[in-house]
Amino acid sequence: MNGDLQLNADGSLRHLLTLDGLPARILTQILDTAESFISVAQREVKKVPLLRGKAIFNLFFEPSTRTRTTFEIAAKRLSADVVNLNIASSAQSKGETLLDTVANLSAMQADMFVVRHAASGAPHLIARHVAPHIHVVNAGDGRCAHPTQGLLDMFTIRQHKGSFHNLRVAVVGDLLHSRVARSQIHALTTLGCPEVRVVAPRTLLPRDVDSLGVHVHYRMETGIKDCDVVIMLRLQNERMQGALLPSPQEYFKYWGLTPDKLRLARPDVIVMHPGPMNRGVEIDSGVADGVHSVILNQVTYGIAVRMAVMSLLAGN
Amino acid sequence: MNGDLQLNADGSLRHLLTLDGLPARILTQILDTAESFISVAQREVKKVPLLRGKAIFNLFFEPSTRTRTTFEIAAKRLSADVVNLNIASSAQSKGETLLDTVANLSAMQADMFVVRHAASGAPHLIARHVAPHIHVVNAGDGRCAHPTQGLLDMFTIRQHKGSFHNLRVAVVGDLLHSRVARSQIHALTTLGCPEVRVVAPRTLLPRDVDSLGVHVHYRMETGIKDCDVVIMLRLQNERMQGALLPSPQEYFKYWGLTPDKLRLARPDVIVMHPGPMNRGVEIDSGVADGVHSVILNQVTYGIAVRMAVMSLLAGN
Amino acid sequence: MNGDLQLNADGSLRHLLTLDGLPARILTQILDTAESFISVAQREVKKVPLLRGKAIFNLFFEPSTRTRTTFEIAAKRLSADVVNLNIASSAQSKGETLLDTVANLSAMQADMFVVRHAASGAPHLIARHVAPHIHVVNAGDGRCAHPTQGLLDMFTIRQHKGSFHNLRVAVVGDLLHSRVARSQIHALTTLGCPEVRVVAPRTLLPRDVDSLGVHVHYRMETGIKDCDVVIMLRLQNERMQGALLPSPQEYFKYWGLTPDKLRLARPDVIVMHPGPMNRGVEIDSGVADGVHSVILNQVTYGIAVRMAVMSLLAGN
Repeated sequence: MNGDLQLNADGSLRHLLTLDGLPARILTQILDTAESFISVAQREVKKVPLLRGKAIFNLFFEPSTRTRTTFEIAAKRLSADVVNLNIASSAQSKGETLLDTVANLSAMQADMFVVRHAASGAPHLIARHVAPHIHVVNAGDGRCAHPTQGLLDMFTIRQHKGSFHNLRVAVVGDLLHSRVARSQIHALTTLGCPEVRVVAPRTLLPRDVDSLGVHVHYRMETGIKDCDVVIMLRLQNERMQGALLPSPQEYFKYWGLTPDKLRLARPDVIVMHPGPMNRGVEIDSGVADGVHSVILNQVTYGIAVRMAVMSLLAGN
Repeated sequence: MNGDLQLNADGSLRHLLTLDGLPARILTQILDTAESFISVAQREVKKVPLLRGKAIFNLFFEPSTRTRTTFEIAAKRLSADVVNLNIASSAQSKGETLLDTVANLSAMQADMFVVRHAASGAPHLIARHVAPHIHVVNAGDGRCAHPTQGLLDMFTIRQHKGSFHNLRVAVVGDLLHSRVARSQIHALTTLGCPEVRVVAPRTLLPRDVDSLGVHVHYRMETGIKDCDVVIMLRLQNERMQGALLPSPQEYFKYWGLTPDKLRLARPDVIVMHPGPMNRGVEIDSGVADGVHSVILNQVTYGIAVRMAVMSLLAGN
Repeated sequence: MNGDLQLNADGSLRHLLTLDGLPARILTQILDTAESFISVAQREVKKVPLLRGKAIFNLFFEPSTRTRTTFEIAAKRLSADVVNLNIASSAQSKGETLLDTVANLSAMQADMFVVRHAASGAPHLIARHVAPHIHVVNAGDGRCAHPTQGLLDMFTIRQHKGSFHNLRVAVVGDLLHSRVARSQIHALTTLGCPEVRVVAPRTLLPRDVDSLGVHVHYRMETGIKDCDVVIMLRLQNERMQGALLPSPQEYFKYWGLTPDKLRLARPDVIVMHPGPMNRGVEIDSGVADGVHSVILNQVTYGIAVRMAVMSLLAGN
């Protein structure tokens, strides 16, 4: 639905708000660019001058040290100037509207806003009102989207599996509260993955799950059977309201990924998790730290993917 | 009163604490320098090396994301290293005196302190005690002064009107609680503006208003009539104590700047506001977003003016 | 006990966790390197490119603006990229373990962690689990160690006294709660100081004081008599529990360093204090601001010492 907002007239990327509607061409361009940045992190001097003299504003309307840090590192490796704004405590409390805040920050001649907001759609609203030379990256809005997380997941799969064309991928856990699952499903489908499964108890599935074009499984044992990739979701304790679940222990018993359950997947399966992990709830330490886990690789790739997005948007 | 503290023996600027007492020569030098920085923001690489290797400490004893951000951007465009210190939560809480804190920060070989403090005069106190090579910039102290805001207002007027010599300027609203109004009036007068008006209800005028050398108006209709420049002040809700005003609605009715009232001014009037705006209280959206508004230009010019001040103080 | 963890197989420094067990060779190398950086701070452009392109993460699990600032300045003078993480408010609150947090930050390809933690041993735990290319610097852990503070004290003594070989040094005050005193004593002894005294009331001495190899004095008058160096400790008000002391006034009477008491030391004595000072409690203003005080020099030297440690650990 936001394809128009995200792409320039010539089809190049203008904002990154959601993976929904992004063509495979753009997704592949981002993954290819990220691949070229992997080597930067292995050099003595981990910097390239692609964003030298550009001003990146991290606009965090809700705190997220981890996400803010990955964007800050990516921006600094591109030689940008980074300004961190924790906005909850600032102008908003003086009664200024979001759009006035954004208009002001635009007028400070920012080149890019990296936006985190508790309200779904806030980055889209901002993108619709910024000056033409300013790019907006969604770093997580409400329950809606977190596209760079989705992209780093795609990058991780491609690095470990080569391509998407013969893969069976399971997305497991709290899909109802996940910002990422929906983006992942769209991206996997767009990139040619033939079988995407969602695996969760009925209480943690969104009501419109049937419209996503995925196979729905209500048991781990069938859900991850013969999968090439298992993407575990974080159990969003802090977002749960009411009694969707009996207890963390019981959740772990039925839905936690253990070495035993993982043996049902393919022998070369990779296990992913967006972090932070709840060990002993959605994932067992034997899996988290085991040979199939690529969870820390995801973090490393996340820097390269964010560098790719930023340099494609605003590179000199 | 602080002219001595602000100027070196050779008449050059050493600290910027207040616009009071600054000669027209210095004001004009700052505005001219700022003009040379306007183009920097329009380049691909928005950086000049004037403060390379210099350490700028943002000492914010009270939070102000907006002001801190503008100084941080200005410093980074000059290639300085910026260290942000939110001091309320730090050494002060361990019982250290302000002057010990400042002596310590001086000993870390800072080149400049940008100081924001709730107590009037704090930046002056600091300026009096720093080592000779350290420069102090007042980024707002109590109700007293906020000189870079005053300067960016002067810059805005000069950019849009060419000079000050034939202008009729109205400063409208909460003069009692404004850090800026007094500086503006002094600067306007010093730069040769022939007619400065203050326009406010009696309860929002400082008691010594007669000593400022301005025309006092108690009604918008006469106050802004035939003006070239209307400077709206923010209604400092959070600073009001007691019943100075009946209600925001009533304030808006009598003192809010609407398109209707603005028609009383000159056809080419410009409207300014320091932000953040209270739309529907001191200013109507039709004016804030209208063709006479230069409010967002002020923000842009604010970066150039702060670059000018910093580079004049500590430039290589 | 941590010598192995701190040194590489070839005897060079890998982590700086504590001064305990560090050989004189390493201590002297750090002090010599720091000396070479003193001149950097006096240049117009206070930067050297030794850590260009390196990512230094300031991991502050407890806040300390002063310490964080000194490391940030040191890192920026070495041209590193600095990322500040205030971790108390972040992932830890989402139930992630310390080691998962650290594994994640490692995966972001940090080159160095500067760690401040309320729990003794936390930096050691982290050092034991980071990837081989990552260096850990302890910026203060619990009551345990604060090695760069100890090093800057040694540097200060060497700058003012030339060598350690004929010195009588008194460490005075709250040794029980000091992170630094133990490091200082070890370093002084290792560097050849023939007489180290600790001077404190019995209630502020650690129980194992006899094992430190120092002379214990229970009165200021005998304790600082004929000393070349007097190191005052901060009275850790905020750490005191229960009634170890009668009152600040009484403490000052017996244990506060006044000009009168200082006359018992050598005429060329230097007085040190780690800051922030409690004037009128452990130190009189006449001493703090007097000719024997090198307290602000310590702060300046602290930047050079931290630059030395960082460049020895991770320099290009």
